Amino acid sequence: MTTVLTDNQYGKAENRVVRVSRDTDRHDIIDLNVTSQLRGDFDAAHYEGDNSHVVATDTQKNTIFAFAREEITSPEAFLLKLADHFTSSFDWVTGGRWAAEEFGWSRINDHDHTFVRSAPETRTAVLVRDGDRDTMISGFYGLTVMKTTASGFAGYPKDKYTTLQETDDRILATDIATRWVYTGTDLDFDALYDAVKATILDGFGKEYSKALQETLFQMASAVLDNHPQVEQIRFSCPNKHHFLSDLAFCGLDNPGVVFYAADRPYGLIEATFAREGSSASADAWTGIAGFC
Amino acid sequence: MTTVLTDNQYGKAENRVVRVSRDTDRHDIIDLNVTSQLRGDFDAAHYEGDNSHVVATDTQKNTIFAFAREEITSPEAFLLKLADHFTSSFDWVTGGRWAAEEFGWSRINDHDHTFVRSAPETRTAVLVRDGDRDTMISGFYGLTVMKTTASGFAGYPKDKYTTLQETDDRILATDIATRWVYTGTDLDFDALYDAVKATILDGFGKEYSKALQETLFQMASAVLDNHPQVEQIRFSCPNKHHFLSDLAFCGLDNPGVVFYAADRPYGLIEATFAREGSSASADAWTGIAGFC
Amino acid sequence: MTTVLTDNQYGKAENRVVRVSRDTDRHDIIDLNVTSQLRGDFDAAHYEGDNSHVVATDTQKNTIFAFAREEITSPEAFLLKLADHFTSSFDWVTGGRWAAEEFGWSRINDHDHTFVRSAPETRTAVLVRDGDRDTMISGFYGLTVMKTTASGFAGYPKDKYTTLQETDDRILATDIATRWVYTGTDLDFDALYDAVKATILDGFGKEYSKALQETLFQMASAVLDNHPQVEQIRFSCPNKHHFLSDLAFCGLDNPGVVFYAADRPYGLIEATFAREGSSASADAWTGIAGFC
Amino acid sequence: MTTVLTDNQYGKAENRVVRVSRDTDRHDIIDLNVTSQLRGDFDAAHYEGDNSHVVATDTQKNTIFAFAREEITSPEAFLLKLADHFTSSFDWVTGGRWAAEEFGWSRINDHDHTFVRSAPETRTAVLVRDGDRDTMISGFYGLTVMKTTASGFAGYPKDKYTTLQETDDRILATDIATRWVYTGTDLDFDALYDAVKATILDGFGKEYSKALQETLFQMASAVLDNHPQVEQIRFSCPNKHHFLSDLAFCGLDNPGVVFYAADRPYGLIEATFAREGSSASADAWTGIAGFC
Repeated sequence: MTTVLTDNQYGKAENRVVRVSRDTDRHDIIDLNVTSQLRGDFDAAHYEGDNSHVVATDTQKNTIFAFAREEITSPEAFLLKLADHFTSSFDWVTGGRWAAEEFGWSRINDHDHTFVRSAPETRTAVLVRDGDRDTMISGFYGLTVMKTTASGFAGYPKDKYTTLQETDDRILATDIATRWVYTGTDLDFDALYDAVKATILDGFGKEYSKALQETLFQMASAVLDNHPQVEQIRFSCPNKHHFLSDLAFCGLDNPGVVFYAADRPYGLIEATFAREGSSASADAWTGIAGFC
Repeated sequence: MTTVLTDNQYGKAENRVVRVSRDTDRHDIIDLNVTSQLRGDFDAAHYEGDNSHVVATDTQKNTIFAFAREEITSPEAFLLKLADHFTSSFDWVTGGRWAAEEFGWSRINDHDHTFVRSAPETRTAVLVRDGDRDTMISGFYGLTVMKTTASGFAGYPKDKYTTLQETDDRILATDIATRWVYTGTDLDFDALYDAVKATILDGFGKEYSKALQETLFQMASAVLDNHPQVEQIRFSCPNKHHFLSDLAFCGLDNPGVVFYAADRPYGLIEATFAREGSSASADAWTGIAGFC
Repeated sequence: MTTVLTDNQYGKAENRVVRVSRDTDRHDIIDLNVTSQLRGDFDAAHYEGDNSHVVATDTQKNTIFAFAREEITSPEAFLLKLADHFTSSFDWVTGGRWAAEEFGWSRINDHDHTFVRSAPETRTAVLVRDGDRDTMISGFYGLTVMKTTASGFAGYPKDKYTTLQETDDRILATDIATRWVYTGTDLDFDALYDAVKATILDGFGKEYSKALQETLFQMASAVLDNHPQVEQIRFSCPNKHHFLSDLAFCGLDNPGVVFYAADRPYGLIEATFAREGSSASADAWTGIAGFC
Repeated sequence: MTTVLTDNQYGKAENRVVRVSRDTDRHDIIDLNVTSQLRGDFDAAHYEGDNSHVVATDTQKNTIFAFAREEITSPEAFLLKLADHFTSSFDWVTGGRWAAEEFGWSRINDHDHTFVRSAPETRTAVLVRDGDRDTMISGFYGLTVMKTTASGFAGYPKDKYTTLQETDDRILATDIATRWVYTGTDLDFDALYDAVKATILDGFGKEYSKALQETLFQMASAVLDNHPQVEQIRFSCPNKHHFLSDLAFCGLDNPGVVFYAADRPYGLIEATFAREGSSASADAWTGIAGFC
């Protein structure tokens, strides 16, 4: 044999689970998109089509819905239960990747059982288990923010391809996508999520931004300073360009009033920050957002 | 000539205009996606490639950005200004279709110039001008709502293709897409938008729902009863199915707790309602959402 | 009662049906996305939640899959069978809107049962039945085409908002979305689809284009001239701008070589053409692409 | 300082470059979506907002368009030129990630300058440079394939959550997303792309499939056997479920004829294969598809 399997993970993706807590007339809901992927000894399935180790993806789906019957205290806690089940039930499953997206709802007019999907962002959680080691990475994406001033970009190198003008007053806008690594798995994940998100939102606008890079650092250090349960945080943030409309063609000035919001291309600024001395290794991130 | 032009409209679509009001340090923003399409005598352009009547789509774009310099009091008011300009500036432009989407932002922590895009729905406005007649149609899409109880479906006809079981307790969820026709164009559109949206949200959960059709009627009649400025309202609402997970395979009951949220197929319930005696004609709606 | 129902249609949308013909070892497939919506007397459902006329959308779905068991000779023929069934089975169903999208596949290496989805466009069909009158509208969307020369735009009116320069050599690119009305319903729809599509593709590049409007007319008249079974045709075509990159900043010329393909805004040119004397009325198009 | 930057990359994403070769009347086009991201010493930008090392993303964009003026022989060759430029022009740029998507066009009726976008898949290329080491990873996504028979799934473990029935005849369908690592960077990338894609398509249907895992292995080993220029290949493939429609409710059988094509959840099978003894390290893949 000359072709060898080096890595693999497989499972059932995007199981859309909605759970209603109806112990009283005042219902609560949790709305998740859950993916389960197993890692371990699946060589024979690939080389020979021997499925004796292949816990069917359909079985993984059934397990997710059955486990949802009991309770879902947080996306992260639910992923831990799934991981415990699969790694303890099947010898050859030595780890995996379990992920959830949570869609946020709020009550309409404080009604008991009527809700509107209101969270602008999608909350994410990924648990990577590798033997004895668990890495819990939470985050969100799709939170679009904008500063209409107190942002500039200057002092960058100029070469023959540089046409950009320096500025000390521009719009800074981005869709925040972020993930952070927790120090452990026995945490109040819902409270931490709200707190970290609030820290990030607060950090976005707090200071004059000399570059989106600096703003990412400011948000990251605020998170790491205020939340000891977080040991690393990563951002992947487009610089959503808002170009000042040049209205001179018709005799109008435009002192920072009218902007054209461009789609593509966009700046893309990505960075990972860690608490100094953090033990989290770089490969904690490998394959987090998928495999490809 | 055997091929004749029967209808046409053309222009520049999806001009992404962001306007910042910065008269004081406390900025305000309005974020629009504006489309301008002209109607009138454009026969020669089609038949002969004679562009002497074709106000360039690029010119329409420039006009949008230039007009944004002055002010944008509401999406609807902005569309009226565009329509007035094009129909008064060019003899052969006898009407058109001007449309805007508005994306809703709110302040982060009441900050002066930092915002987060928070509105779950996209607000829409379409002005159709046909000679002397203006039809202003406002609305929104993408507002996802859910009732976890007080919804059923029963009493429907059964034939050999019917397998659905009657129920008096199910989840009812939909993405509300709605448009309403105003009685005129001299209105406080922003205040009306908020008020109509609140009436719809309130109407969604107020009563037991015997069918999504009935719920649409309840929302529509609440709007028409409470807002005399609205003379027609239309809904296009998917019935986003949430199927109760059958957990009997592993010995679990499921008393309305765990649901699978399906993607496709989905119910699609669409209806238009008018105040009795409304003068708005059916063809006010023609081509509203586009042409195809 | 002051609120009245003026129009409505309801049903099950986006039923994804794949049918395999396996009479011999050489399989064939047809891959459809079918929507069924009924029109008729559904007043009581809206006003009172009386569902005695509401053929369940689930029943409509079951009917679609059951009817697919027999055969699907073409999307259009399948829609006719659905319409006949619903209007003949239920007195109060006086018409409706049945629609299908078809995704095109071809064999991999002429293999008997292995296929690749290869059609760049999505084929569409909509049947609108209103009492005794059937309107069959077929078409496609998503066919992206480009001319790298033999296209210009000149002779348009200039005003104070005009900055566009005239040109006799530009890129013309569009995503063709088109629908055409057939003269009847007893036609070889598959053969006609291929033929009309070929005529459109051929027409796109045949002549110098003075404007996208003229190109639409050229494609339309070729279709109406060559296919007597078509009595109207409509196009909704973006002008996908390809801007010549200005490379003077680094001392390079750019004689029509490097272009930036923009996303938004885009031109949007829409027109309907009919054979002179065509009896098809304008409202054949109402609600074709949906309701909103 | 307690917060440290551990990784970062930044640049301009999704530059939509269309290049027309017009040396003769028979034009050729290449249509790319290019992303440039630099890695190196950017600490000061993050910690202090010191942009003296930050080659502006706008400059990166300008460079891409300027370099397109000369020639684009293949997406991969173009990425190499960009990498060489940035790493040689700026001391502190020690590497980066350059990526391109290519959209495939073909001539309409062998016309000289009229094209239709016809490739069902999007071709991808990523060059990761880390000091002296280049890793070139090519691939594609969005190639949807289906086998209507000669696929089964049996012999898997059963537990209390298993309800799936074994089968030796089902539909197997997937959207192939694949990336492969080349052994070097001095290759005929266009010819190799066509050849590897053909090998994958051929491999998909060649043998009875006992599981999608086995089919991935078969495709991978065919690629590694036939193309010595490839040393690793990775697949991320959904198992796009086609469920046999149960028509017993209306008295119909369904011997593999009518299927419901489901959206979510779906199986997700991901695996990397290498030629035995391959020197490519696992971290060649890190951050390939992005950062998050």
